[in-house]
Amino acid sequence: MVDLPLVLAVPQPRTLDTIFAPESLAEFQRRYEVLESTPEALASLAPEVLARARYLVGQPAIGDETLAAMTSLRAIVNVEGNFLDNMPYERCFERGIHVLVTSAVFAEPVAELGLGIALSLHRSIAESDAAFRNGTERYGLDGNGSARLISGSTVGIVGFGDLGRAVHRLLAGFGARVTVHDPWLPASILRGHGVAPASLDEVLEGSDTIFVTAAITAENGSLFDAAAFARMREGAAFVLLSRAGIVDFPAMLAAAASGRIKVGTDVFPSEPVAADDPVRLTPNTLLSAHRAGALDIVFQRMGEMVLEDFALMDAGLPPMRAKRAERETVGRMRSQPVSRS
Amino acid sequence: MVDLPLVLAVPQPRTLDTIFAPESLAEFQRRYEVLESTPEALASLAPEVLARARYLVGQPAIGDETLAAMTSLRAIVNVEGNFLDNMPYERCFERGIHVLVTSAVFAEPVAELGLGIALSLHRSIAESDAAFRNGTERYGLDGNGSARLISGSTVGIVGFGDLGRAVHRLLAGFGARVTVHDPWLPASILRGHGVAPASLDEVLEGSDTIFVTAAITAENGSLFDAAAFARMREGAAFVLLSRAGIVDFPAMLAAAASGRIKVGTDVFPSEPVAADDPVRLTPNTLLSAHRAGALDIVFQRMGEMVLEDFALMDAGLPPMRAKRAERETVGRMRSQPVSRS
Amino acid sequence: MVDLPLVLAVPQPRTLDTIFAPESLAEFQRRYEVLESTPEALASLAPEVLARARYLVGQPAIGDETLAAMTSLRAIVNVEGNFLDNMPYERCFERGIHVLVTSAVFAEPVAELGLGIALSLHRSIAESDAAFRNGTERYGLDGNGSARLISGSTVGIVGFGDLGRAVHRLLAGFGARVTVHDPWLPASILRGHGVAPASLDEVLEGSDTIFVTAAITAENGSLFDAAAFARMREGAAFVLLSRAGIVDFPAMLAAAASGRIKVGTDVFPSEPVAADDPVRLTPNTLLSAHRAGALDIVFQRMGEMVLEDFALMDAGLPPMRAKRAERETVGRMRSQPVSRS
Amino acid sequence: MVDLPLVLAVPQPRTLDTIFAPESLAEFQRRYEVLESTPEALASLAPEVLARARYLVGQPAIGDETLAAMTSLRAIVNVEGNFLDNMPYERCFERGIHVLVTSAVFAEPVAELGLGIALSLHRSIAESDAAFRNGTERYGLDGNGSARLISGSTVGIVGFGDLGRAVHRLLAGFGARVTVHDPWLPASILRGHGVAPASLDEVLEGSDTIFVTAAITAENGSLFDAAAFARMREGAAFVLLSRAGIVDFPAMLAAAASGRIKVGTDVFPSEPVAADDPVRLTPNTLLSAHRAGALDIVFQRMGEMVLEDFALMDAGLPPMRAKRAERETVGRMRSQPVSRS
Repeated sequence: MVDLPLVLAVPQPRTLDTIFAPESLAEFQRRYEVLESTPEALASLAPEVLARARYLVGQPAIGDETLAAMTSLRAIVNVEGNFLDNMPYERCFERGIHVLVTSAVFAEPVAELGLGIALSLHRSIAESDAAFRNGTERYGLDGNGSARLISGSTVGIVGFGDLGRAVHRLLAGFGARVTVHDPWLPASILRGHGVAPASLDEVLEGSDTIFVTAAITAENGSLFDAAAFARMREGAAFVLLSRAGIVDFPAMLAAAASGRIKVGTDVFPSEPVAADDPVRLTPNTLLSAHRAGALDIVFQRMGEMVLEDFALMDAGLPPMRAKRAERETVGRMRSQPVSRS
Repeated sequence: MVDLPLVLAVPQPRTLDTIFAPESLAEFQRRYEVLESTPEALASLAPEVLARARYLVGQPAIGDETLAAMTSLRAIVNVEGNFLDNMPYERCFERGIHVLVTSAVFAEPVAELGLGIALSLHRSIAESDAAFRNGTERYGLDGNGSARLISGSTVGIVGFGDLGRAVHRLLAGFGARVTVHDPWLPASILRGHGVAPASLDEVLEGSDTIFVTAAITAENGSLFDAAAFARMREGAAFVLLSRAGIVDFPAMLAAAASGRIKVGTDVFPSEPVAADDPVRLTPNTLLSAHRAGALDIVFQRMGEMVLEDFALMDAGLPPMRAKRAERETVGRMRSQPVSRS
Repeated sequence: MVDLPLVLAVPQPRTLDTIFAPESLAEFQRRYEVLESTPEALASLAPEVLARARYLVGQPAIGDETLAAMTSLRAIVNVEGNFLDNMPYERCFERGIHVLVTSAVFAEPVAELGLGIALSLHRSIAESDAAFRNGTERYGLDGNGSARLISGSTVGIVGFGDLGRAVHRLLAGFGARVTVHDPWLPASILRGHGVAPASLDEVLEGSDTIFVTAAITAENGSLFDAAAFARMREGAAFVLLSRAGIVDFPAMLAAAASGRIKVGTDVFPSEPVAADDPVRLTPNTLLSAHRAGALDIVFQRMGEMVLEDFALMDAGLPPMRAKRAERETVGRMRSQPVSRS
Repeated sequence: MVDLPLVLAVPQPRTLDTIFAPESLAEFQRRYEVLESTPEALASLAPEVLARARYLVGQPAIGDETLAAMTSLRAIVNVEGNFLDNMPYERCFERGIHVLVTSAVFAEPVAELGLGIALSLHRSIAESDAAFRNGTERYGLDGNGSARLISGSTVGIVGFGDLGRAVHRLLAGFGARVTVHDPWLPASILRGHGVAPASLDEVLEGSDTIFVTAAITAENGSLFDAAAFARMREGAAFVLLSRAGIVDFPAMLAAAASGRIKVGTDVFPSEPVAADDPVRLTPNTLLSAHRAGALDIVFQRMGEMVLEDFALMDAGLPPMRAKRAERETVGRMRSQPVSRS
């Protein structure tokens, strides 16, 4: 066993059992010497252990000294979902240590929930079921007051990273016109994906459905404010899938309450939501309790990513599955980590 | 005006205002002399009027004699949705009178609702929203007990006419394996659409989601009975979009109540559903009040179909938009007409 | 064996061995009593034989009397490729006898050759190879004088039947803008295929590549004349895949000889082409000797079509694979049959 | 003008006029102070000039000292097509200087030529045209001896970088089964593209058409040798698009000469090919004189890439259009640069 490469595992807030399916975990332990540690204990590991570590699973806080001691380190893999501001990135870049995040696993499940929310909003699926339960359902045309189709409509996506692309992919069969606002991407890349690059105002004014999938950055806090909601089309659906901080939440709820737009959201400014929070009573909304990405099988895809990327790096190749931190942008991401799954 | 071709309009239970958008209706009236009548009055129209009629919009009961009197007739267009057993089809086929139905307009809206129901069932969208309203929502992984993804799963479609194909089209972006059972279609046509032909049992046993889109025929009444539901996968979703008669409804509700499967339905054996019908209290169901196709803009697509097909026939070409009754199958269809929109 | 349905086989100019793969022929003979005859002998078959025939494979000349004697006939299947003007269609339509043609099998191989010709014209593939043989090849940019890409260009298709659609399908990966001129199809059907409906002039003036796939009819003889070629873009490619009669051949060759356009053709006004025909020396052309559809495996797909459609009709369903003659259009088709494979 | 960022332009063997369309060049000069230099003169530029340079267009040889003097440098952009072994990459990686190559522009034109070659080989397009010129053409089935379709066949792609992906994209409409061998890519990424990962032997033995698109590396010289060609299917087509060095050329020609396979190639071990090189007389080959990527409009796309990536870097974002050199792999690439366009 002495010859297996060493992996330090500090996957908090997750566990190895969460991010690896049983067979994957067995393979992981067959291929590597896996030493589980904690964020607190990492710095106190023996120097020869730190020096032998090829990979670090998890992104605990790391000081300059500890990083310097990890002389064989090839990659640090965040398995929570967002890069943290807790280590000397610049030193990693200089040394060619890949800093990776497995967040792409969330794109598909979040996009499916997002599309489900949009369809439910446009066709009153949840409302209609609730009406059936209390005997007030309305049939046929009478029950379709504000219904609209996604097929043939215009869909706006704000943010075109993994999640925005997954939403776009799910829309492949709808024949919708998809416009995208993403200030970090050049127009030609958007066009190459078959979507129309657009300003935020164009997305707001031209869309029947808007999916917000942008990560929160130093620049986009409360990007969607009362003025933004006022620009939206009457009857349009606004589906918030990424982070609550990108939205002026009270303004969003006011727009829903007014009946001008419909709102679905999987995220909230503070979770769990207070028992007396007005969001619970706001009409024209569809509420989901941060459930979009948190599926057992989804976390286990992180382990598959880790196994494939480690195999590439073991073979002297760069990682290709997880996303790399970039010198230019890592400091501009502002998401707070989740405290639990 | 005397030179315009004559159209007899008997669109009950719909109206010309329902099936034509205002501009389309204007074009219709510009191109044709439109004589509105009623099912009752049709037979008593003056023989010279009947003799001049090129098209009949609507499918009122027609006797041999009346049909014989309509010597210029090229097409009868049902704008309700199902061919009726109320006229001498054989005489139409002999004479080359096209008997058409515009039901294809419903495929897209019904398919969207169906996908929305499936996503809601698999991700508890309606339930989660209801829980938020009464303060019992559960966050993250805790709220996703039985969640599953459609992406990468197996979807079964029973019936691959316009509606089944529309469901398949909407699934284009999901990377799902789609199996289809349709005893009226040869395997090569199914394969040509990129789906796997399957027996009903294969669909039942192998699918994570089943969409029932088959029209009801002389052969498939109560096709889905207790034995069929017992074959389904634990946790699978069963989405009924076509007609209630194809299902043993109590058996379906029992399967949902047992927790083995989830059920969504837009149709019921008798509508409106009785106030004390047990379906209202059945858990693991999602209920929609026959709202799948009944959208204003959808009915108006019937008029667009009519205009295009009439233009083709005016030019001596066969109709291509509406679906034609077939000698072999028209007698085997068993749907009852809707009594209202 | 006496109980097997009777099929009369008169497949001239083809043979059963040509249109059925060995296993398919075995299945055909297992399922049916197959009586091979000739066009000349058909009318003299015993009345009780004619009366028993359920299907006729091949489209020999049939008189009123013979057709009347075939009292059990359900379908006549042309296996040559074009409906012939040699029988009382109207009686077939009245009686519900399907008149079918298996020509759809040619769409895919002809489309592939067509795309190959277009790519060869735009990239001088054949010319460059010829140059290599005589030592005059030119490298890199020097060898690409008039090269252009199909990706991102505008492609025009004239005629959007099976062949036009197959060409469009092959272009799926090119990201080309596809415009279609087909006066027999309504705009919405073209749009539903993702192509832009266009007038012939729009196709001529706006396309970098034009594929002619239209069958010849009573209306479109010499549709492409000198004026049409003069409208084409400088350097565009004109690929003729259907019938020579749709083109003014000398005008087409003159346009190629002038260097304004490039021309590829698989068909000629008279075949075989005379030894001294000027087409052989015309520059900027690519010539194929009516080879587009004539592949062994392609003919054998006719047999698969026949087996599937006969199975449908045996089950009381309408045929779905082969194309049906239509009352409105069958008299307007003008193709001459091929005299050999 | 003093405020514009400085770009050093050393685009040899290309020129700015080649890689920028006129409007793009104007924009380039409007946005940047562009100083054209030569590979030889670069090191002797004034230190203050080197210190001000934000970008270097072209990849001339650079020594440690010169690189150290370029204190503001953000990116070096190779506009030839292959990373060169002529500079201290490690220092660039440490400093976060992006080393980029615009070779992706060649993927689309090379893939189109490759598909054209494959179609020509399988359908004898060039041969048939040549036969027409000398009066030996054969019609219909007679002229299709070894023809085969790509639709429904198995296609193998060796190397799945930009070019391999472009070939795959062009095949989208063919309904072919695509298998890929690329030892540098994990299976899940290949599957994510909808292709089947395969060993080299599986590709050789199972494919009707093989496209070689792999860049040459330290490991794959003469990967395709006599044993490899012997594994190929009778009648399969082998299309070489990347580099001659990946193939044992005499073995490839022998396999073609034997009639077992058909071979098309755009590259040769030594170019221009000698007048008496036996390749010129080898049957069952299709020869193209390194013309696949060398189109005017293709080179100009390099300039568009440069403009977009510079705009991203000007905004403090990472480049996204051009491909980056990777620490792990840049030393393993072995292509020789072209000496001319």
